[in-house]
Parts: sequence; C-alpha cells; structure tokens
Amino acid sequence: MDYPFSNKVLALKPNAIREILKSASDPGVMPLSAGNPAPDAFPIEQIKEISACILEENPIGALQYGVSEGYQPLRDTLKKYLKSKLNIGTKEDELIIVSGAQQNMDLAAKTFLNEGDVLICEAPSFVGALNTFRSYNTQLIGVTVEKDGMNMEELEEVLKNNKNAKLIYTIPNFQNPSGVTMSLEKRKKLYELAKKYKVLIIEDNPYGDLRYSGKDVPCIKSFDTDGIVLYSGSFSKVVSPGIRVGYLLANKQAMSKMIICKQGQDVHTTMWSQIICNELLTNYDFEKHLDKLRALYTQKANLCMDLLDEYVVPNGISYNKIEGGLFIWCDLPKDVDMLDFCKKLTERKVCVVPGNAFLTDSSLTCHSFRINFSTPTDEQLRKGIIEIGKLAKEIINR
Amino acid sequence: MDYPFSNKVLALKPNAIREILKSASDPGVMPLSAGNPAPDAFPIEQIKEISACILEENPIGALQYGVSEGYQPLRDTLKKYLKSKLNIGTKEDELIIVSGAQQNMDLAAKTFLNEGDVLICEAPSFVGALNTFRSYNTQLIGVTVEKDGMNMEELEEVLKNNKNAKLIYTIPNFQNPSGVTMSLEKRKKLYELAKKYKVLIIEDNPYGDLRYSGKDVPCIKSFDTDGIVLYSGSFSKVVSPGIRVGYLLANKQAMSKMIICKQGQDVHTTMWSQIICNELLTNYDFEKHLDKLRALYTQKANLCMDLLDEYVVPNGISYNKIEGGLFIWCDLPKDVDMLDFCKKLTERKVCVVPGNAFLTDSSLTCHSFRINFSTPTDEQLRKGIIEIGKLAKEIINR
Repeated sequence: MDYPFSNKVLALKPNAIREILKSASDPGVMPLSAGNPAPDAFPIEQIKEISACILEENPIGALQYGVSEGYQPLRDTLKKYLKSKLNIGTKEDELIIVSGAQQNMDLAAKTFLNEGDVLICEAPSFVGALNTFRSYNTQLIGVTVEKDGMNMEELEEVLKNNKNAKLIYTIPNFQNPSGVTMSLEKRKKLYELAKKYKVLIIEDNPYGDLRYSGKDVPCIKSFDTDGIVLYSGSFSKVVSPGIRVGYLLANKQAMSKMIICKQGQDVHTTMWSQIICNELLTNYDFEKHLDKLRALYTQKANLCMDLLDEYVVPNGISYNKIEGGLFIWCDLPKDVDMLDFCKKLTERKVCVVPGNAFLTDSSLTCHSFRINFSTPTDEQLRKGIIEIGKLAKEIINR
Repeated sequence: MDYPFSNKVLALKPNAIREILKSASDPGVMPLSAGNPAPDAFPIEQIKEISACILEENPIGALQYGVSEGYQPLRDTLKKYLKSKLNIGTKEDELIIVSGAQQNMDLAAKTFLNEGDVLICEAPSFVGALNTFRSYNTQLIGVTVEKDGMNMEELEEVLKNNKNAKLIYTIPNFQNPSGVTMSLEKRKKLYELAKKYKVLIIEDNPYGDLRYSGKDVPCIKSFDTDGIVLYSGSFSKVVSPGIRVGYLLANKQAMSKMIICKQGQDVHTTMWSQIICNELLTNYDFEKHLDKLRALYTQKANLCMDLLDEYVVPNGISYNKIEGGLFIWCDLPKDVDMLDFCKKLTERKVCVVPGNAFLTDSSLTCHSFRINFSTPTDEQLRKGIIEIGKLAKEIINR
C-alpha cells in the first residue's frame, strides 16, 4: 500500500542523533554524543520514598484520570517557585504541566503555526525541537549564535523580511548545542524585536539550574509585560527525564488553545510523575538536591575542559568555555572535513554529534561538533577526549 | 495581544464533557457522566509491589531517557500477547508504546490528514477522539450507528462522495457512547470498503477486555492482510488511566512517520508506567485480574440495567442492552427536549452527558444521553437512576 502521508510529515526523517546514539549504546564506545543526565544525578532514594508513600496513601490519585492542565498542587507549587526564584509569572499568566518540555514545542507549533509559516531559531539549535517544528511543515530560519547569543541585526533582518514569522525559539541559558548564554542586553533586545514585529518567543530553559560559574541572567519571561513569552521548564535535567514532566508558563489566552491541543495529545501527564515532582519541591530540600547536581556536573565540566585544553586544543580544535549546561561545542579548522572527522572518531569508538545535525538545513557545511560530559563516566570522557586529540594531531596538526 | 492562532486550532473549543464533569466533581452530585474506572478496579497491591521492585532493582531504567518506540520488553510482550489472544500482528506490522491511546488518534491525524481532509467516524462517537481530529482542522463525517454497528450503505455513500476521505475511525467493541458492538459481517464489509476506497481504518479497542456476556467478535485487524488497519490498544480501562500507557499495532511503513511525530510530541512514554505494565503482563496473572474486573463491572452493568428497567423504561425512555464496556445510551421520545432534560437532571444533582456532545456537529438535534456505571458507587447509581425515572415521569409519562 502506498500510504497517503500528509504534507506535514512527508519530508520528515528520523532524528540523526538517534542513529548515532544507537552505535553509542555499544558498551565499548565512548558516548560523548548523548545528552542524558549522569546516573548519579537522579534523586533515587527520595523518589523511592515518595513513590511508596503515594501508592500507600493516595493510590487512586496516582492511578485515576487527572485533568489536562495538570495536577493542581504541582501547578500551585511551580507558580510560587518560579515567582520567587526567577520573578516570572503574572496574573495574566497560567501554568500547565506537560509530558516533558518537548511537548511545549509541539503545542506551540500546532497552536501558532500554519504550514509554511516561519519559526526563527538559533543556528545551531536543539535538533529535537527543530524536528518537532518540522513536523508541522514549518519553515525554519536560523540566526547565528555568537558568544553572547543570537546576532540581533541578523534577527531583525529576518523579522523584517518574513511577515509570516510567528515564533522565535531560543534556549538562552547554556544553549544546546553551543553552550552559549545570551547576555542581558540581547535578551532585552530580543524581547523588543519580538514585540515590535508581533512575534511570540518560546524561552526554553531546561538547563537554567545547571550553572557552574558566573552569575545568573534574568529570564526573558521576567520582562514579559505584553504576554508574548511562552516559558518552557523541565524536570528532565534536574530530576529525571524518564518520568516525562515539564511545564509551560504563558499568558492565559495564548495558552487556552494549547490546553485543548494537550488534551487531544495525551489527555494529561502521568499522575505518579507529577506527584513525585510536587513532593520533591515541597517536602524535600530541592535546593540541596540542585547543589548536589551542580557539584557533580561542575566536576565533570571542568574535567572535560581540562582534558580538551590538554589534548585537543594544542592540536588545532578550539571550543567555547562554558558556565553551565551539559554541552561543549568544538570547532575544527575550516579546511577539515567535519563529517569525515566524526566518522573516523566513530571508527575509533568515540561518538560525538556532527554539528550540521543542529542546523535548519543539515546539508549545509559545518565545521563543529558537539560533545557531552554528563553521560560518559570520567574514564570514558578521558579516553574519548584523548582519542579526539590523537585524531586531531593526525589530521590537522601534522 | 491578539494571538495569531493557526487555522488548525482557531475553531477549537474545550471538551463539553469536561465542563459537565466539573459540576460532577461536587460531592453531592451523582456522577453518571464520567468514564473513569471504578476505584476498586485498580490493581493497587500489584502496582505497589512492582513499583518498589523497579525502584530498588532498576532505578536508572525507570528514570533515564528511553526510546520513542517504547520499552522494548513491553513491546515484545504485547506483540506476543496480541498474537495469542486476538490473532493480530504480522511480520509487516510493528508495535509502539504511546502515552495513552488518545495519542494514537493524534499521531494518525497528524500523519495522514491534511487540513480539510475527511475522517469518517461513527455517529455518535467518542468526543475525545473527535476533538483530537478537529484539532488538525479535519472534516468529520459521521455514519449512523445501528444495533450491529455502522450502516454500511451510508458508509459506502460517504466514501464514494468524498475522495479526500483518508481515515475511518471505529470503536467496534462496546462503542463509546452507544454501547454497540459491530457484527462480524459489518467488520468484514468495513474492511472491504476501506480497501476498495484506499482508506485506512483506526480500530480503537479500549473496552475489548470488558465483555460481560455474549461472545467475542474477531478484531478488524485480524483480517488485515493489506496493512490498512491501525489497531489502538490501551491500559487505561484495564490497569489505570493515570499511568498513561497505550499501544499501536500497525504496518511498519505506515507507522514510520507516526514514530517521528511521537518523538516530537513527548520523546517517549513514562518509563515507570511502561515497566509496570510489562510486569503485570509477565510476572502476574493478568487474566485473573481481568476476570476480577469483569466480575466487578458485570455486577455494576446489571445493576444499572435492572434499575433502568424498573424506574426509567416504564416512564418512556428506552436504551440498548449492553454486553460489555462502560456506557449505556438512553433514548428520549422525539418530542422531548434532550438538552432541557439533562439540564433539569443537573439541577437535581444527577450528571449525564447530553448525546449531541458525541456528534460531529454538536449543534444538531439529538434525543439521547449517555450514562456511565463504572464511576458512581452502587448507591449513587441507584439514586441517580431513580431520579432520572422521576424526571421522566414528570416530563414524559404525565
């Protein structure tokens, strides 16, 4: 049978990173390609305790249908938490619980984009979100990421030339994959431009709590007096991705149709997962847990950068120092074939992600690749980076 | 701000039933409107035991990212289970895990329908699924449900006159809301017609295990030699809706794009929930659990029908006897205003669902309403049905 696929999905291809991750699951391979939290990062003992308590005291609450907007106590907890921690959320805003922050991207695309409409993103940007946008037959336009975030002149050009631009997608903190944090000035400028051109902003902030040095920068949502910022939060990097809990803070009216779409997608998010998150935030010392996480990842991030400085940089590969997040972006000299370099690394059992996977058009030339330090053990990280250095020496620094 | 909603979602309205359910949550109200499993139906002790075991023995497996297609052991278990129990699934088929069967409707609509394309459903049909289809700007055409399922002449007329019909949505067993089971003859005819007109069938079977009398009828999927049936299964009615686990069995090629869309929506289904289901199916006596459920619901269904026969039917309301499922469809005489009748019931603290909510166009006149017997206690059911009888006596049988 010749299946009658819709125009939306006709050109969709499986996520390139997942194919790479398949080879990375071989136990002999150094998995510098994933974005998984470190196994030590999960609050296992707390979750064990909470789960036993839920199923003892409120099993029906965990097993019965819930409402699409989310478990009310968690919604209330998060509203207060976000207000006191990030100073975001107004009376015009609402907060809903979603099945992982990825669902926010899907709901936003579905609610605000017609087929062929433009979504502006960073170049490079998170491939998972880009694929979600693609699945609505969206036209993606990337704006160059500089050391302090998107190039604002380029952004304005794109806005000026694309009247059907509806959304700007940004990861302002420790961006995936570049590791870059957008400066306060650029956040303000981005907000102004979005307002001027009547475009909504999706502020995706999965890594905001994972800062290892430097100072926090205010969220774009914190300037949002016009109801144009959809703030997306996630428990995937700070509690667990397997429980699938994220949240969305946005203007009530903007959100109204998103809630109906959420209901159509999965009725509501897993109750057990939502109750776990609420208990962690209310009856446990969540800041202490975050401190523990930051200590764990600071050590791994520093180890990674030290190893890069020792073995890789002297052989001609440069990278941006990071202040947080889970990813480091490495740049090859322009005369080196990046795809060939990554392929050779795979043959030597080191998996990294070719940078073109993060572009709006992955057939474009790219000289960078992404490495991750949360998934590999310290030993795998060391072996992997030494191997990258060796290959660089053979190919670049002959 | 005037939000630029997409054409897909512009006309979307909140689910009418949910508004009714809000008033049904008042503790003084007889909730005959919902479709929740009975609180006694949950295998609480088993889930408690499995959850403790998972979090003790394999916490990382439950908390780390999983693959979009689903937890492999559950996929393997379900493939074998469906083959042996229902004789469905071929070498050309694949099975994936979704976040509740509702997600199957969303993925099918997204993958196979362009805006304005036709989806054919039963009239009446499950409002949750209809709303999902509506959220892709789909044109819904309903085909009359008779005592043995869709009217096949009407179906062929619709197929003949709508070249852009892409999907037929059916709940062949104990249909929601009508309670009707499609006969084997009609299932075969439906399959033939779908094949002839090159249209896919979504076979939604959430209630198949809840048969209280009569004999099982083969699934439409069991005749599927052409890869045109998307079979949707769910754990919501037989384990728990709050855990959000469903599955889809369909031709690999048809499914390929659906998997990419699933990945874009929520990356994967909650790992804990998937492991719970797999353990229940492999290390527990699942058939015994189903027997317990059937005994529980047989008692409630019979109680409900006995009460209807005693208090309601003599006062001019008729209904279809059911052999399974959770719903009973009641018909008022044609000269009674159904919406007014339901409104008066609500004033008397009895909640039922007005039948027009289940039509493709809810502004059409409808003389029926739906009652559910799994959510209310026996006492609530008795009080509620006696009240329906009283109102019928006042309005109809004066």
